[in-house]
Amino acid sequence: MTDFANRALLPAGLRDMLPPDAAEEAGVIERLLRTFAAHGFERVKPPLIEFEESLLDGPGAAAAGQTFRVLDPLSQRLMGLRADITPQVARIATTRLATRPRPLRLSYSGQVLRVKGSQLRADRQFAQAGIELIGSESAAADAEVLTLAAEGLIGLGIDGVTADLALPTLAATLFAAFGIEGDTAERLRHALDHKDSAAVAALDGPAAPLLQALIAAAGPADRALAALAALDLPPAAAAERDRLAAVVAQVAAALPGLPLTVDPVESRGFEYHCGVGFTLYARALGAELGRGGRYRAGGTEPAVGATLFLDSVIAAVPSAPRPARVFVPAGTARAEAERLRAEGLVTVAGLDPVADEAAEAKRLGCGRRLGPAGLIDVV
Amino acid sequence: MTDFANRALLPAGLRDMLPPDAAEEAGVIERLLRTFAAHGFERVKPPLIEFEESLLDGPGAAAAGQTFRVLDPLSQRLMGLRADITPQVARIATTRLATRPRPLRLSYSGQVLRVKGSQLRADRQFAQAGIELIGSESAAADAEVLTLAAEGLIGLGIDGVTADLALPTLAATLFAAFGIEGDTAERLRHALDHKDSAAVAALDGPAAPLLQALIAAAGPADRALAALAALDLPPAAAAERDRLAAVVAQVAAALPGLPLTVDPVESRGFEYHCGVGFTLYARALGAELGRGGRYRAGGTEPAVGATLFLDSVIAAVPSAPRPARVFVPAGTARAEAERLRAEGLVTVAGLDPVADEAAEAKRLGCGRRLGPAGLIDVV
Repeated sequence: MTDFANRALLPAGLRDMLPPDAAEEAGVIERLLRTFAAHGFERVKPPLIEFEESLLDGPGAAAAGQTFRVLDPLSQRLMGLRADITPQVARIATTRLATRPRPLRLSYSGQVLRVKGSQLRADRQFAQAGIELIGSESAAADAEVLTLAAEGLIGLGIDGVTADLALPTLAATLFAAFGIEGDTAERLRHALDHKDSAAVAALDGPAAPLLQALIAAAGPADRALAALAALDLPPAAAAERDRLAAVVAQVAAALPGLPLTVDPVESRGFEYHCGVGFTLYARALGAELGRGGRYRAGGTEPAVGATLFLDSVIAAVPSAPRPARVFVPAGTARAEAERLRAEGLVTVAGLDPVADEAAEAKRLGCGRRLGPAGLIDVV
Repeated sequence: MTDFANRALLPAGLRDMLPPDAAEEAGVIERLLRTFAAHGFERVKPPLIEFEESLLDGPGAAAAGQTFRVLDPLSQRLMGLRADITPQVARIATTRLATRPRPLRLSYSGQVLRVKGSQLRADRQFAQAGIELIGSESAAADAEVLTLAAEGLIGLGIDGVTADLALPTLAATLFAAFGIEGDTAERLRHALDHKDSAAVAALDGPAAPLLQALIAAAGPADRALAALAALDLPPAAAAERDRLAAVVAQVAAALPGLPLTVDPVESRGFEYHCGVGFTLYARALGAELGRGGRYRAGGTEPAVGATLFLDSVIAAVPSAPRPARVFVPAGTARAEAERLRAEGLVTVAGLDPVADEAAEAKRLGCGRRLGPAGLIDVV
């Protein structure tokens, strides 16, 4: 089968996951969710499709352009195929689980589908796994979620996990304090996203040096927080800064080995966040493993969550050794094969008798075969 | 939250799976796939959507009426949301894995979506898990798949698993041998599906007593096979009967405790099968847990598979005890909580200090809390 023929079979950005990748992904998801469960995060599973208006409500609005729609023949209403799971979990928390005690800790994993791939992520379908902690305004909630997401990744054996923290609403808070709006605000937002200090300097008025200082502050968390602490910020912005410092302090205490950086004015990718946001990276790969932050569930309830992107996570996880396969010839007593499986071996049954069992074992990718006197290496 | 409000939120037949159900389903899938893997079935993961013509090709054609379509904006071609996974696995086996040695053993799990629910299954989304054994004509292949699917279910602790075997093409084989076609064949097919012996008797000619005998033969496998053996069948039909007997004998030898029944003329639900078909039941619930049988992958390659329906499987599995939750007050040393998790306990962290830790633990559904001197029961 050529790559060409395969591409011809599937739409762009969609693919078959083959052995051993599919088992590896499932194993990684299982380990992540087990870690989350140990910290009291209980699993939910929303459906793949729901009505457009509930799917794209609140935090879901950000994914509207990336959402496939199908008509529901039963209700004659449009449904969307989810492009993100967080909005669904937020919906569950604020509706069906509205009366459960807070903070509510939920976890999930599942597939998401997007109308188009992006430059960073060509796949149009990939798996997500994540956690949402709903109902607490505390900095400890932000810290718990970031720490647990990072711990999940570290627990998979990924080398060089780092976290970059941001205050996606800080720029808007400053704009409001300094009466910057309209076109000017838009140009500045663009300049900040591109760390374009010169364009920021071109702005007259008292905000310019502050915004330049925020761009310059980006870097390792200790240094960045010290630089931010030295700034004379308006009260609302100062509160955001102090919250960031509190979260960094708690994460650093919990996971002293996790390198933390801060990019105070970063807002890209944090469409619906309203507090500290963060991105998790695998340093060696330069890959974004996940992201998260604080938002409002159901429009009002404080919430903080983290989503891990399984495609990049899998690429960063050291591959596990494949289990040893043993060829078990046709006619072997069932209990004998059972005993091998109980020892953790994979048995591959011969369906019909063959003349050369060694050759058959080799052909089927088995490193050993069961002979009359026990296991025999296949060479 | 009322049921009514929740129904208003989601389309009919789609639902949120809540704690503890979602974790239970995930755990059951994991255990099934682990059983399959131990027998050399390697996991694949096809995409949720693919081009309509590949999805609905061959064995996929049966699901055409149940398949949601979406337009792919990239290719401007129609894609379908899978209503079944077997056709996708057959496609993978005969294209991308065409050069892998046979028999090829593949496993899978995933979600399927259907345009409408059925009487038996109101849900429009549910999880499937299954196995496909591709490239062998041997009766041992049929027996391995049926046995393994049943073993997977029994391994979950489901009581009273039974298997019902059928020869979905037997009637057509007999019709061909006796020159029965057109309207007569259709009426007969309907009569056989409804075990309507009187309608069959109304047919003149030598086939009528045979077909009546086939209806009457249905029942426990031993008795049914004896009745079938006594019939003077045309050669092609006799070959089907002999194959059924061989499969039954091998399954009975492998799992002597599994009750087997035979319904020789059953064909409903076996749209694309061309040999022995089977249905797995949980006797106590009367629920269909899965089905499978022999088919042609890619139109030509011999294959046999089994699909388990997770919604009915979960309903039949005895629920597992929920793990014990321990409230860990804010400020507890990280290592202490870690030690509790290492013992298999779930820790629920207090985010901020509280005055009454016992009350807080109780409020959060924790049976114990961590005090200064160790674990304390919460009453």
